[in-house]
Parts: sequence; C-alpha cells; structure tokens
Amino acid sequence: MPHIPLPPDLPGIRGAMAFRPETARPLNALVEILLRGPSTLTPGERELIATYVSSRNCTEYCHHIHGAIAAAHLGGNEALVKQVKTDFTQADISPKLKALLVIAGKVQKDGKLVTAADVEAARKEGATDIEIHDTVLIAAAFCMYNRYVDGLATAQPNDPSFYRERGKRVAREGYVAVSEEYLAQRAPLAAR
Amino acid sequence: MPHIPLPPDLPGIRGAMAFRPETARPLNALVEILLRGPSTLTPGERELIATYVSSRNCTEYCHHIHGAIAAAHLGGNEALVKQVKTDFTQADISPKLKALLVIAGKVQKDGKLVTAADVEAARKEGATDIEIHDTVLIAAAFCMYNRYVDGLATAQPNDPSFYRERGKRVAREGYVAVSEEYLAQRAPLAAR
Repeated sequence: MPHIPLPPDLPGIRGAMAFRPETARPLNALVEILLRGPSTLTPGERELIATYVSSRNCTEYCHHIHGAIAAAHLGGNEALVKQVKTDFTQADISPKLKALLVIAGKVQKDGKLVTAADVEAARKEGATDIEIHDTVLIAAAFCMYNRYVDGLATAQPNDPSFYRERGKRVAREGYVAVSEEYLAQRAPLAAR
Repeated sequence: MPHIPLPPDLPGIRGAMAFRPETARPLNALVEILLRGPSTLTPGERELIATYVSSRNCTEYCHHIHGAIAAAHLGGNEALVKQVKTDFTQADISPKLKALLVIAGKVQKDGKLVTAADVEAARKEGATDIEIHDTVLIAAAFCMYNRYVDGLATAQPNDPSFYRERGKRVAREGYVAVSEEYLAQRAPLAAR
C-alpha cells in the first residue's frame, strides 16, 4: 500500500507523477532527452543502461518497464534484456556498451567509485565524452526514479507480461506523450 | 581531474551542466520547483533536506553549496546547518522536519527502507501528504545530483567560504536564473 494516497489505477511512477504534475513534467522532460533525444547511443542501448541500474536497485516497476521498452527497441529480444540484468559481460552487446555498463554500475553504488581507468576503457572501445556523460547521468537519474518509486511504496506488479504492451507504446510514442494523458487532467498543487 | 573535459571555471554540477545544456534545463527546473516552488515547507527547510542527503552521500560540492543556500535562507545560521549534518536529532528544528529527515535518510540508502511507521510519525508531527511526497523526491533527486557530480569527478572545492557568496545569490535569485548565465552561451549538442 502506498505511503500517501496515489491513484490506484496508475502503478509505479505514474501514480506518483499524477499526484504531483508540477514535478512530473521536468522528470519526464529529463528521461525523454536522456533516453530518446539525439544521441550516438541507440534508444535500445540507453534503455538497457536504465534497466540495468533499476535492476541493481531492485526496483521492480522500473526494471520491468524499462526492460520492456528496451526489448521493444531491440526487435522484441527479451532474452537479451534478461541477460543484461543477470550478467551483462556475457550478453550479445557491443564492447563499448559493456564498458559503459561498468561505469553505470559504479554510479549506481556511488559516483566516486568511477575511476579514470573505467573511463579510459570505455574510450578505448569508442565511447565519446558525451556518451560517457550521458551514461553517468542516466545511471544517476535512475537512482532517483528508483528511490522515488520505492520511497512512496507505489504499486509495483512483478509480472513481466503486465509491462509488455505498455513498453511497446512508450518505445513508439515517448515519455512526455504517454504521460500527458494522465497529467493533463490533474490540477496543479496551487489549485488544490 | 574531471573524467571528461569540463569548463575549468565552473566547479561541481555547473561544469557538468555547461557541458550538456539540454539535460541541464530539466535538472534545473526540477530543483527550482522542489526547493523553491510553492510549498508549506520553507525554502530553508527544503535546503536542509538537500544538504543532509548530500552530506550522507559525501558529495562535497553539493553539501557545501546547499548548506550555504540553507544558511542564507535561515538568517546566516551556519551552526544550525552544521548541526543538521552532524546529528539532526539534536538540532533546533521542528519535530516535523526531524521526522521528514528520518524519511530522507532512508531514501538516501534505499527507498524500500521507508516504513509506514516512519510516515505515520511524520504525520503525527503535522506533515502533509505533499510534504511527505516532496521529502521523498528531494532525497531521491539529490541521490541523482550527487552521483552526477561525483561520477564525472567534477572539481569540488572543500572550503565552505568558497560557497558562501554563491549560496546567498542562489537563495536570492534561484537555480534557473543563476544557471542561465552560463547555459545561455553554450551551443546545444545538436549544433556541435
């Protein structure tokens, strides 16, 4: 049961965002730019970073929904998403993405754990400064989204099939568009 | 030395934001609403929550600058800020803020640690649903900002006096306004 009264029809971060549209908008703008904006990392690669961090934080809602979005971007390859969560070193992904996931995994624990050698290893596999920047910020941002979802004790179904259709839709339409359908109806705090 | 080339004249999160104005804007919009938007928690109280979380994450830049902003909002009371960092249970702050800091401290570790009893204790001291929501999101957001600042190995001066004047200015003018002075001059990624 959520710690504060959240709309029961909206699980995970959606309920928290509907509760507070004022903060939901920059939260959605950030994830839209980071995971879907112009980048030399594909949306699928960026969703895998988000999924991996959320999985390490054990936040069911986030690792299931971003895993489903990643799979949708990757031609429905759910096995690959599962492998990245379990042991990405054995996954069929590029050496560059593996090096970036090492950095993301350290940021998930503590940003200070990232070493110059980690960054050098990513550069050796072709990572650019912006890709390194974005990996750090995606990992940091999901440490926020995960804590937001967990800290309010939002509803988090644990069945992957619950997330499959939604994942396809978010992959197609984006975060800002799909959230506006419930945010648009909510009165901002000032009007309550 | 930062892991990627950041402007040397801009320490901490400012250098990272200048490097990537596209993500800086939602990051600034979020902190502006959370710490300075309409709320029944004062800006000083909210800055104390941000300072406390940043201090627990041992992120020098963030706990010094938000400590300085908090002090500016609290009539220059740097001793109070220091006491909140060291042991808030002994600080001269309201029982409600102490109960909210308990929640923030748990979110800093893992959102799943927040219990119904923690939330009930805050409610007993007068905390509203929105105050509980915002405490969770402020704590979660600073787990992001802290990791962003640390994960890129940004420059983080460790001298409180370095932050004092800047703190007064941010308290007066706000995050969006003071960041635009360096963001406005930067080309977005798409134009580079």
